[in-house]
Amino acid sequence: MADVITPRSQDYSQWYIDVVRSAKLADYSPVRGSMIIRPNGYALWENMRDALDRMFKETGHENAYFPLLIPESFLAREAQHVEGFAKECAVVTHSRLMATPDGGIMPDPDSKLEENLIIRPTSETIIWDTYSKWIQSWRDLPLLLNQWANVVRWEMRTRLFLRTMEFLWQEGHTAHATREEAVEETLRMLGVYTTFAEEYMAVPVIQGVKTASERFAGAVDTYTIEALMQDGKALQAGTSHFLGQNFAKAFNCQFQNQQNELEYVWATSWGVSTRLVGAIIMTHSDDQGLVLPPRLAPTQAVVIPIYRKEDEKTTVLEAAEQIVRELKASDISVKLDAREGYRPGWKFNEYEVQGVPVRLAIGPRDVQNGTIELARRDTGTKEVIPTSGLGTRVRETLDAIQKNLFDRAAKFRDENTTYVDTYEEFKEVLDGKGGFIYAHWDGTEETEAQIKEETKATIRCIPFDRKEEKGRDMITGKPSEGRVLFARAY
Amino acid sequence: MADVITPRSQDYSQWYIDVVRSAKLADYSPVRGSMIIRPNGYALWENMRDALDRMFKETGHENAYFPLLIPESFLAREAQHVEGFAKECAVVTHSRLMATPDGGIMPDPDSKLEENLIIRPTSETIIWDTYSKWIQSWRDLPLLLNQWANVVRWEMRTRLFLRTMEFLWQEGHTAHATREEAVEETLRMLGVYTTFAEEYMAVPVIQGVKTASERFAGAVDTYTIEALMQDGKALQAGTSHFLGQNFAKAFNCQFQNQQNELEYVWATSWGVSTRLVGAIIMTHSDDQGLVLPPRLAPTQAVVIPIYRKEDEKTTVLEAAEQIVRELKASDISVKLDAREGYRPGWKFNEYEVQGVPVRLAIGPRDVQNGTIELARRDTGTKEVIPTSGLGTRVRETLDAIQKNLFDRAAKFRDENTTYVDTYEEFKEVLDGKGGFIYAHWDGTEETEAQIKEETKATIRCIPFDRKEEKGRDMITGKPSEGRVLFARAY
Repeated sequence: MADVITPRSQDYSQWYIDVVRSAKLADYSPVRGSMIIRPNGYALWENMRDALDRMFKETGHENAYFPLLIPESFLAREAQHVEGFAKECAVVTHSRLMATPDGGIMPDPDSKLEENLIIRPTSETIIWDTYSKWIQSWRDLPLLLNQWANVVRWEMRTRLFLRTMEFLWQEGHTAHATREEAVEETLRMLGVYTTFAEEYMAVPVIQGVKTASERFAGAVDTYTIEALMQDGKALQAGTSHFLGQNFAKAFNCQFQNQQNELEYVWATSWGVSTRLVGAIIMTHSDDQGLVLPPRLAPTQAVVIPIYRKEDEKTTVLEAAEQIVRELKASDISVKLDAREGYRPGWKFNEYEVQGVPVRLAIGPRDVQNGTIELARRDTGTKEVIPTSGLGTRVRETLDAIQKNLFDRAAKFRDENTTYVDTYEEFKEVLDGKGGFIYAHWDGTEETEAQIKEETKATIRCIPFDRKEEKGRDMITGKPSEGRVLFARAY
Repeated sequence: MADVITPRSQDYSQWYIDVVRSAKLADYSPVRGSMIIRPNGYALWENMRDALDRMFKETGHENAYFPLLIPESFLAREAQHVEGFAKECAVVTHSRLMATPDGGIMPDPDSKLEENLIIRPTSETIIWDTYSKWIQSWRDLPLLLNQWANVVRWEMRTRLFLRTMEFLWQEGHTAHATREEAVEETLRMLGVYTTFAEEYMAVPVIQGVKTASERFAGAVDTYTIEALMQDGKALQAGTSHFLGQNFAKAFNCQFQNQQNELEYVWATSWGVSTRLVGAIIMTHSDDQGLVLPPRLAPTQAVVIPIYRKEDEKTTVLEAAEQIVRELKASDISVKLDAREGYRPGWKFNEYEVQGVPVRLAIGPRDVQNGTIELARRDTGTKEVIPTSGLGTRVRETLDAIQKNLFDRAAKFRDENTTYVDTYEEFKEVLDGKGGFIYAHWDGTEETEAQIKEETKATIRCIPFDRKEEKGRDMITGKPSEGRVLFARAY
C-alpha cells in the first residue's frame, strides 16, 4: 500500500515529497500552494506545539488571539514592513458572493469593502495597534504574549511544509520598558528555540545574527538558528527579532516611565512554523521513509501480534495487550496493531514508512519464552529481549534513539562544514558537497549581493560562537572581523 | 482598576459587555466585527478545547488541517450550501498590494486572481473535495476527522464571543459506508457536546432536532443542544449534522462496497465555537463579574497573603507558598498573588471580577492558628478553616461549586420553562419573563415563519424527550404530534 519512495541519491526533492506523502503527513490541496495536513502530520505538529507552548509558559508568556484580517492601511504604517510583505498579501475586497446569469458565482459588487483587508502575513501591525491601547504605564510592562495561528504569504514556488501559501505557526510579541530587557527577551526566545530544535527535534543548530539584508522587515536585529539538511542545504529553523521602537513609533505606543516621562515601548517578536516538520523530515529520514525523534513521535512504539492459527490468536493477543498496558504505564505512547487481513510484513513496512521509533513483534513462541522482538527504526537493528522490565527497556531505547539521531545529525553537519579562504574554493565546495561554509566577508551588502547573485548562497548568520579570527574578504580582499556562515538555503 | 459593571437588571446587554471587558476576556478590534481574545479568554478556550479534544479522541477521531482559502466555485457545488453561505463570505481577489501615488496602498491590478478564493465559513466543500480523492473502498471508511480552526462569516450585528466575523471553532467531518452509521455518529457527537456542556460548562441543555428552516445549509438533519441564558433567551450551544449523501454527490465521492458496487459516501459534520465562552458567561456570571465553572477555570484557586508589617511578611509568604505547593500536589490550578503595592481588598475584587472559583486569604494570625480563609465565588460565602488537609478541602469545594452552578442553572431553566396552549399566552410569556416555551405546532414552515415574523421567537428544536402528547397548533388549530421548544434566541 505504501508507495515507492525515490532514493535520496537519485532525486532528493522527489524523495522528500515521497516521504511526506507515503508517511501520510500532508497532501496537496486544490488551491495552489496550500496544503492539507493529514492526521499523521497534524499529530506531530500538536506534539511540537505542546512542547513549545510549555516552554513559552515556563518563560512567563501567555497565549492570546488577534484577528486574521488586518486593514491594509496598517501594513503601510511601518515603512520596512510594508516593503517586505506587500508583495505577498492575500487581499479581501468583498464580503458577499452572488450568482452570475450563467450559473456561476462572483463577488457582489455592492459588497465592495470601504477599506480592503489583508490576511495576516504576520501580526505585528494589528498587535501593536492593540498594545497602544493596552499600555499606558511602566506597570503594564512587560507584556509577554504569544499566538498560535495561521498566516498567509503568497508564495510562488511552494513545497509541502517548507514553503506553503498558508502555514501554521506561533508568533510571540512582547513589549518592554527598556532596550536591554527587549534584547534579553529576544535572546531568551532564541535559546528556547535552540533547546527545542536540539532536545526535541534532535536537530543541531547554529545560533547567530542575520545580516541587514536578511533581517525581518521592520526589525533592528534578527537572530536565527540554522540547521543543515541531508542534501547540504541550510534551513532557517526559527527567528527571534529585536524590533527596537519601530512598531511602537508606527503605532504610537508610549508608556509613562517611573519618572513620569513618556517613552516609546521596546518590542520583540519571534516565531516558528510548520516548516519545522520539513526540517525534521529532511534531517533524519532515509530511503525507507520517515524517521521521527521519539520525543515528538505521536506513536513511540507499535506492538504487532503475529500468529497463524486461530488457537494461537488468543494467547498472542492477550500477551500483546498486556505489553501495551505495561508500556502505557511507563508513559510510552504505544499503539497495538491487531488488524486482521494484513500480513505482518506489510505492517512492518507501514510503520517503517511512518517513522515509528520502536516496533515490537510478538508471536506464539515469544509468549512461551517470555520474549519479544524489538526493532529500532533509526538503525534497523532487531533484538529478541525478555518481556519482563519492558517498559524500562523501551524507554531506554527511545532515549538512545533520540540521542543517536542528534549525534548522527551533528556528525553529518560537522562533516559538511568547510572553512574556505578563496572564492574559487567557495564555489567548488558549494557545487560539490554543499553544506555550511565559513568564510571571511567584508561586511558590505554589495559583496553579499554579488555572492548571492553568482552562487545562490546566502549568509545564513554571523554565528555567536565564531572564533576570534581576523581575515580578508574572499572576493574584495578587504578586512574581515571574523568568518560568517554561508550556505544555499531552503 | 476593575471597571464598574452595569447591573443585569438595568441593561443585560451592557452587563454582558462589561463582564467580558472587566474580566479581560476579550476586546474589540479595529476591524468591525472581529475581536481580540485576551489571555484570560484564551486560557478558558484552551481548557475547553483540551477537554473536547480528549473526548473526540476517545471516540476515535483524529485531527487534521485543511486550507483556509477555498475556490469560490466549490461553494456553488452544493445548492443549499451556497444559498446559506454566499451572502457572508470574505472574498480574496488579489495577491499583492502596491503603493498608490499619494502614499497609500492598493491591490495590484496585475495580481488579480484567475479564480477568487473565499475564506472558509465552514469546510465541508474543501474537505469533501479531498475525501473524494482519499476514499476508494469500504476499507477507507469510516474516516473520522476533526479540525481546530478559524472561520469567517460576514456578520452585520456582532457581539463579543456570541457573534463575531471571525471565530475559533472545531469542525468534525466524518465519512461512513452506511446511512445508519452516519446517523449514529451524528448522535454520538451530539452526546459528546451534551456531556461537555453539562459536565464541564455546567450548562444544562435540551437535545433535539432542528426544523427544516433552521437546518444547516446542506444538511438532511441538524441536531442541536439548546441552553437558556439568564435573560430568558436561548443559545444554540452546539450542532451536529447528518449530511446524507449531499456533499458526496456534489463532490463525487464514491466508494466500492463489499459487494464491489459503487455507492456514495454518507457524511456528518459537527461543531462548537468560541461562542460557548459567551454561553458560560451568560449562564453563570453575576453583577460582580465573571463566574467560572471550576472544571474549565484557568485558575481554580488564588492564594492572597495578607500582612502589614515587614516582620510578618516572611512567615505569611512562606505559609502561602507552602499552601500553593500543597494545592498543586492535589492537581489544583492555583495562583499566588504576592504582588506588592496592591491592597488585599483590591485583589479580592480583581479575582471576583475574573471569576476565580476559590479565594484563599492568609494572614499572620492564620499562620499562628494553622488556618486560612476560604471564599467561594459562586455563593460569596467565607469560612475560616484549618490548613491541614487543605488540598482535599479545596477539591471538594471546587466540586461543590461545579455542582451548584449546574443545579442553579437547571433550576433557573426549569423555572423559566412554560407550557402554553394559546398564542395569546405564548406572546405574553415571551414579552414577560421569556424563557423556553413548549407549545404545539402544526409542522408547517408557514406557521413557523409567521410566529418568527410576529414574535421573533423561533423553534429551537423538536426535543428528543418530549412527552407523548397530541394537541392542536396554537395558531392554526391543526393537529400536532407533540410540543416543540420555542424561544427568542441569540
